[in-house]
Amino acid sequence: GRARGRLFVIGIGPGQEAWRSPEVARMVSQASDLVGYSLYLDLISDISRGKKRHDFDLGREEDRVRHAMELASEGKDVALVCSGDAGIYAMATLVFELLDNGGLSDGAKRIGIEVSPGISALQAAAARAGAPLGHDFCTISLSDLLTPWEAIKMRVKAAAEGDFVIAFYNPVSKRRRTQLEYAKGVLLENRPADTPVILATNLGRDGEQVRILPLAVLDINEVDMLTVVIVGSSETQTVETGDGRVWAYTPRGYSAKQGTGISR
Amino acid sequence: GRARGRLFVIGIGPGQEAWRSPEVARMVSQASDLVGYSLYLDLISDISRGKKRHDFDLGREEDRVRHAMELASEGKDVALVCSGDAGIYAMATLVFELLDNGGLSDGAKRIGIEVSPGISALQAAAARAGAPLGHDFCTISLSDLLTPWEAIKMRVKAAAEGDFVIAFYNPVSKRRRTQLEYAKGVLLENRPADTPVILATNLGRDGEQVRILPLAVLDINEVDMLTVVIVGSSETQTVETGDGRVWAYTPRGYSAKQGTGISR
Repeated sequence: GRARGRLFVIGIGPGQEAWRSPEVARMVSQASDLVGYSLYLDLISDISRGKKRHDFDLGREEDRVRHAMELASEGKDVALVCSGDAGIYAMATLVFELLDNGGLSDGAKRIGIEVSPGISALQAAAARAGAPLGHDFCTISLSDLLTPWEAIKMRVKAAAEGDFVIAFYNPVSKRRRTQLEYAKGVLLENRPADTPVILATNLGRDGEQVRILPLAVLDINEVDMLTVVIVGSSETQTVETGDGRVWAYTPRGYSAKQGTGISR
Repeated sequence: GRARGRLFVIGIGPGQEAWRSPEVARMVSQASDLVGYSLYLDLISDISRGKKRHDFDLGREEDRVRHAMELASEGKDVALVCSGDAGIYAMATLVFELLDNGGLSDGAKRIGIEVSPGISALQAAAARAGAPLGHDFCTISLSDLLTPWEAIKMRVKAAAEGDFVIAFYNPVSKRRRTQLEYAKGVLLENRPADTPVILATNLGRDGEQVRILPLAVLDINEVDMLTVVIVGSSETQTVETGDGRVWAYTPRGYSAKQGTGISR
């Protein structure tokens, strides 16, 4: 190995090869070692022949990242493989957390780091549904594993008052079913009952499903850990095209309801 | 031409080919006609040989989209080319606005539509800077062209109170210099003076520049129309690596300041 290895922190997009950037493919080709959750490593098997795989189970994020950084400190070029965008609720931030205060070895603190952006599941869901992110939006993780529930409630309230389109990450877990129901209640106080909600699963994979339904009838039991949930703002609309397909979109600015944005 | 053309609404990423998805390349290859701002069409000239170009000036968004839809209504397969992600402050939403209430011809209402997601400048800036989008974030456009300034102020206030990481789109224009200064003032009331701010320009191109500076010293005169501006939350930190490079990251949850998130 060389004196100073590199760590490529990469997001492979949500599932299908067609959403994986050329930069990610280049970084995988330059790496000798791949570290990640097994399913994500499987998704890049077409470009990882001859690379050493370091498979981790879901949930062992810190172990994964530490292992990748230690490998790089040995002089290896390592790709830390994330789904979606490595920088959005994924491993990239943990790399810097550990550098900052994770008690790493001196060698691990001297590795070279390159972060590569990727298409997130949020963006893929939005594209399949139309253009719900066409104006101001926010993302909120509903996981209370590291964030106090009071802080999450504060964010939901602010997003509701700010009339943001909202993408919920970690909407539910096996033990956690009530947070999304709470958010639904808060939002129904601030935006119309027919506000479009997008539920998307298996984006870019077999079994892909994208549904658009009114906020008032959102059933939390239809949402699982891997569902992308986007709730429109008070401005978000639906429109049906000639082929019977229904789309959701959020107009640029406040033009649609004021009738001043586009010429007719 | 065929009876029913298709409109591919595509985002080519922020500037460099390495961030352009294979799906976008496939859609360009399937299109006979390309519609877009000249600079964006230039950026895909490597894959657009033999295609008919329909160049538009910056700012003629509605003309661009109407033209693309009318071409598709004539049976052509048309790519409407955006920078970044077509669904984030770009042309995709305008397609649906026009379908909904833009007085289109019956033919234009019957075209097939496919939207493809892309890596946004926001994500590229974040990757270059570290991982500032590692936890809850929002995007706010400061353009008052279609959105009343009062509504923008309401969004800035809500984002400040919710302690979101904030990406500002359209931060300034030739005639508009005061909105970002206003936002800076509101944010300084809610988060520390040393909150990291990221300013990024020319991402993935010659002259790329990414700077990280404290909110209190953000000088609006250093921001132009094409600058990506990301303001950290109260949790966003900086860390210097062995090579002297400074990065910004927002920890997962509230771990860093509470000291409970990672093992040391």
